[in-house]
Amino acid sequence: MSYAQLMESVGQVNDLLNTQSILSWDARTMMPHGGHETRGKQLATLSVLTRDLLVSANTRSQLDKAEAETASMPDEAVEKVMVAQVREAIDWHLAIPAELTRKRAELGANGHAVWAKARAESDFSQFVPILEQTVALNREMAECIGYEAHPYDALMYRFEPGETVATLKPLFARLREALIPLVKAIGEKEQPRFDFLERHYPVDQQHAFALSMAQKVGYDLNRGRLDTTLHPFEVSFTRNDVRITTRFNPNYMAASLFGALHEAGHALYEQGVDAAYTRTPFATDLVGLYAVGGVSFGAHESQSRLWENHVGRSREFWSVNFAEAQKFYPDQLSDVTADEFFRAVNRCKPGFIRVEADELTYDFHVMLRTDIEAALMDGSLAVKDLPEAWNAKIKEYLGLEVPDDANGVLQDVHWSSGQIGTFCNYTIGNVMAGQLFEAAKQDATIASGLATGDYEPLRVYMIENVHQHGRRYRRDELLVKATGRTLDPEPYIAHLTAKYSELYSL
Amino acid sequence: MSYAQLMESVGQVNDLLNTQSILSWDARTMMPHGGHETRGKQLATLSVLTRDLLVSANTRSQLDKAEAETASMPDEAVEKVMVAQVREAIDWHLAIPAELTRKRAELGANGHAVWAKARAESDFSQFVPILEQTVALNREMAECIGYEAHPYDALMYRFEPGETVATLKPLFARLREALIPLVKAIGEKEQPRFDFLERHYPVDQQHAFALSMAQKVGYDLNRGRLDTTLHPFEVSFTRNDVRITTRFNPNYMAASLFGALHEAGHALYEQGVDAAYTRTPFATDLVGLYAVGGVSFGAHESQSRLWENHVGRSREFWSVNFAEAQKFYPDQLSDVTADEFFRAVNRCKPGFIRVEADELTYDFHVMLRTDIEAALMDGSLAVKDLPEAWNAKIKEYLGLEVPDDANGVLQDVHWSSGQIGTFCNYTIGNVMAGQLFEAAKQDATIASGLATGDYEPLRVYMIENVHQHGRRYRRDELLVKATGRTLDPEPYIAHLTAKYSELYSL
Repeated sequence: MSYAQLMESVGQVNDLLNTQSILSWDARTMMPHGGHETRGKQLATLSVLTRDLLVSANTRSQLDKAEAETASMPDEAVEKVMVAQVREAIDWHLAIPAELTRKRAELGANGHAVWAKARAESDFSQFVPILEQTVALNREMAECIGYEAHPYDALMYRFEPGETVATLKPLFARLREALIPLVKAIGEKEQPRFDFLERHYPVDQQHAFALSMAQKVGYDLNRGRLDTTLHPFEVSFTRNDVRITTRFNPNYMAASLFGALHEAGHALYEQGVDAAYTRTPFATDLVGLYAVGGVSFGAHESQSRLWENHVGRSREFWSVNFAEAQKFYPDQLSDVTADEFFRAVNRCKPGFIRVEADELTYDFHVMLRTDIEAALMDGSLAVKDLPEAWNAKIKEYLGLEVPDDANGVLQDVHWSSGQIGTFCNYTIGNVMAGQLFEAAKQDATIASGLATGDYEPLRVYMIENVHQHGRRYRRDELLVKATGRTLDPEPYIAHLTAKYSELYSL
Repeated sequence: MSYAQLMESVGQVNDLLNTQSILSWDARTMMPHGGHETRGKQLATLSVLTRDLLVSANTRSQLDKAEAETASMPDEAVEKVMVAQVREAIDWHLAIPAELTRKRAELGANGHAVWAKARAESDFSQFVPILEQTVALNREMAECIGYEAHPYDALMYRFEPGETVATLKPLFARLREALIPLVKAIGEKEQPRFDFLERHYPVDQQHAFALSMAQKVGYDLNRGRLDTTLHPFEVSFTRNDVRITTRFNPNYMAASLFGALHEAGHALYEQGVDAAYTRTPFATDLVGLYAVGGVSFGAHESQSRLWENHVGRSREFWSVNFAEAQKFYPDQLSDVTADEFFRAVNRCKPGFIRVEADELTYDFHVMLRTDIEAALMDGSLAVKDLPEAWNAKIKEYLGLEVPDDANGVLQDVHWSSGQIGTFCNYTIGNVMAGQLFEAAKQDATIASGLATGDYEPLRVYMIENVHQHGRRYRRDELLVKATGRTLDPEPYIAHLTAKYSELYSL
């Protein structure tokens, strides 16, 4: 009885979190310019009420009783796991003073304009005071949350539970060891033909083609839609309404196509969560206060990168689907072969900007940010020394000289929002995608589906092994069930090595 | 101090109400089909939390103290009026048992499907049980709210404060007396040319033209946008984000055009509310729990009908703007004159369906519904006798024989939602529009603006006399300030008589 009441309270929290997501989606896709200020107030009110509802005396009393009711159940019983997740979240929120949360939100609200101006003028010094306050507040927050070895561990927990500076160190080292030589070798090779990707592709056709590819991999439009934004994203308002966006550059069609496939990968995760988990803790990040079924940001990214890269940038995919691309773009692709298309969309070209990075160099951008954040948090790096540290790593990893702060340390929006701790997920996602994809391909039906353009078997595998569980298991529990082991970079490294060796005749 | 705290609580209530409006707008314009069920739960949760916040012990304590703080102010002081409105609303909500509200919401949720099936099969008997429960629940609600003379007065209060069965009786009688002869006389006259309105008008061009006309009358796209729905509507999320929709029939361009002008009229009201009233009681219907700046549904309708009919269907409007229409539709309107266009969009043709009615016959549809609702509430009409009563009135007013329930008593969605009391506003709006328009035209600048296509003087008049005040004054207070008298049907009757006498050479 109390368990049911607790679940209804969680359901209301989930409703409020989904509501915030709807307001944010609208603000990014539909809202007229004039609406920004009052939308901000609406979101702030919802945010306060949501936390208040979760940690209210009423919810806590329901929780106490629900714990008693479920005490005799086995630890792995769904009810018991749900109750434990609510307990964990409430403890988490009560450990952080509301004043600290408010201060960080305020810093985030003010920080954006300062960052935007600093970036526009490529002048890091303008951003230093904000970033110093951000580091200080996040240190304070880490102390409230608590950690065993490193303050950065406390901050990562909200995005990638279980990941720590200590676990990332060997992972990153192995990736660098394996991938830096590849990047270096490619630098001495000839680049593939690329001209046709930069022809004129009308935006309406790009929209139709991107959507058709998203549907081909299983994105359900009865529970979704595709819109246009500057930065692509996916957002869900329960599994029944999972929306994606992509960006459209009339002179570069790959951006909309792979943006849509990437976000469709995220969307498949949310659309695939067990319907029975709707409005429950298994579809609600009660720690991060975000309505999501994915178990960690890294696990989520594994699904987007799997469909974008392992499927969407594979030779097999284009040998089956290139004819479809030519139907949408008969003029632009008339003198192009499927193999040329495959090679072009896999061109490896080290650059300064993370969001424009290719599959092979992307992780270097992530590793350098993660290492820098950790160093800021433990005090081994001072904010003022950040550009120097940044530029040195770009030189070391990619062999490039950063020309200015806008192309370096100022490029990402993240720090301006007051957040620290959310970069490692991108690389975790890449590694996890490699591991899951290798395991899935052992199934002959999946493998032959990939060869013939039937993506349903792979999607079903992902539903069974990842999506349906929502937040029931930890990320590594999912990996052990699916692949027999915890996070392991070798399949991902093998994939990149084989792919780029062939592409560039290394 | 407590006053400021009370206003912040009201601000949060306003945020939550605007949030509900955003979710509803999204559900009607953007949401994929699969999202309905969980969206309903999100709206239900918001609805409960909003009422709870308004009537919470905390808000009530702030209210008590704010009343004390403002006690020595003059009655018309903004602060005192705001506090009084909060008091009125809280008393209202506390008078209605939550259980009754829940029951009516539940009835509304179930009623829609029953009504839809009954209408599809044109069989009123299927809808009788639901409507009987609706009448019973609304009677119970009227008793909780309280009234002096008639239970229907209590129900109208939420939509049109101050209007009663007693005040409507002479108003309706005068309208019938003046307008029935007009309708009858037109029935014997030749109809104007109409063919060109039913040519093929591509939807994209209709969208662009409707938007251009909405902007011409002052709709601000920096704080608005136009979308597509089956039934046009306007909704605001504060004055900074006021959206409209219209419907597009490729073979009947007048629907999108006048739908957009009508909704733009509503939108001008909300965009014109004083910015200082944002998030205050003057921009929040705390009784109806709806985020709106318009002071009553009738006052709101006065603005939509003013711009749709008095401006948009005037000869002057098309003598200035027809050339623009021809630019958008060069083929479709090549053999048409401005005068022919004006006459076509004013064709008077009595019909069965309210939402398709012309300017002259619209009020008959409204009056019959209002009279029927009042009779259902005082028990002088039984639900089972409703079709007979309905059909007799259609015969009396419009000279038509209703062929079946779908074209009669089952046509409107309103009763299926559990609501009774919201029909008179349409006619109040027409009457008020006539009165305000006559007063405004006394100003030479406004009159010459209408003749030359400059609508800014009229819009400024409406801002000054209506929009800016939001919910500060009662509807009749606004009318007295603007026109020197309370609601008066004579200007409206004079307008219809002159217009249709000329159009049909009566």
